[in-house]
Amino acid sequence: MVKKIHHIGIAVKNMDETVKLYTKMLGSKPVSTMEIPGPKIKITNFQVGETALEFLEGPAGSSIADFIAAKGEGLHHIAVETDDIAAELKKLAAAGVKLKDKEPRPGPEGKIAFVGPEGAHGVTIELVQPEKK
Amino acid sequence: MVKKIHHIGIAVKNMDETVKLYTKMLGSKPVSTMEIPGPKIKITNFQVGETALEFLEGPAGSSIADFIAAKGEGLHHIAVETDDIAAELKKLAAAGVKLKDKEPRPGPEGKIAFVGPEGAHGVTIELVQPEKK
Repeated sequence: MVKKIHHIGIAVKNMDETVKLYTKMLGSKPVSTMEIPGPKIKITNFQVGETALEFLEGPAGSSIADFIAAKGEGLHHIAVETDDIAAELKKLAAAGVKLKDKEPRPGPEGKIAFVGPEGAHGVTIELVQPEKK
Repeated sequence: MVKKIHHIGIAVKNMDETVKLYTKMLGSKPVSTMEIPGPKIKITNFQVGETALEFLEGPAGSSIADFIAAKGEGLHHIAVETDDIAAELKKLAAAGVKLKDKEPRPGPEGKIAFVGPEGAHGVTIELVQPEKK
């Protein structure tokens, strides 16, 4: 079952400038920062209600830089939180959505899987099943 | 003050197909549908937690059709809910974000104003101040 919008992924060119601007715009500081080690993608999260704005910056050749080259900076994906990611993946495959990840894989906060944008009307969707704490 | 992500706007080519697919994917039916009379933009909302997914379809020449021609179907804007839209507009202008609407205007559920994507790292943002009920 889909419970909430966990975060909205936004591809940007310059994280430092972005963080300065959105700190002013939102009136709050980032709640977390991290770097994905392999592709060296920098991540900064701001919290807005129950949803994070997840800003993403990546080096040349990364999926984020490729996205920006093709479409420009901006909205990249939405992440929905579920309590059963395996069941959601089966349901999405049955509905004709292309699975980038056929099986859930470890993410920063639990299990994740990316689907679409093919078969999902242009929307790249991340499924997130947070670890039970 | 920014309170939550009110909705996420998604531009699509075929509303009927989109509604069928997302009804399956989300396991819930749309919570509302409407049509903006002037530009004849069709809107269908699904609710996910405190945020709506707002699907938008427009005829040739509409802003929605133009967006799809330039970037393809997909994520179009995010809407943040505020309790003081006039104050937010001033703050955004001071931060260097381009205001599409210099003043709030009436929207389906209260006052709205669009800003960006220029000056907001590629993100088109709608401010929403719901009517008090």
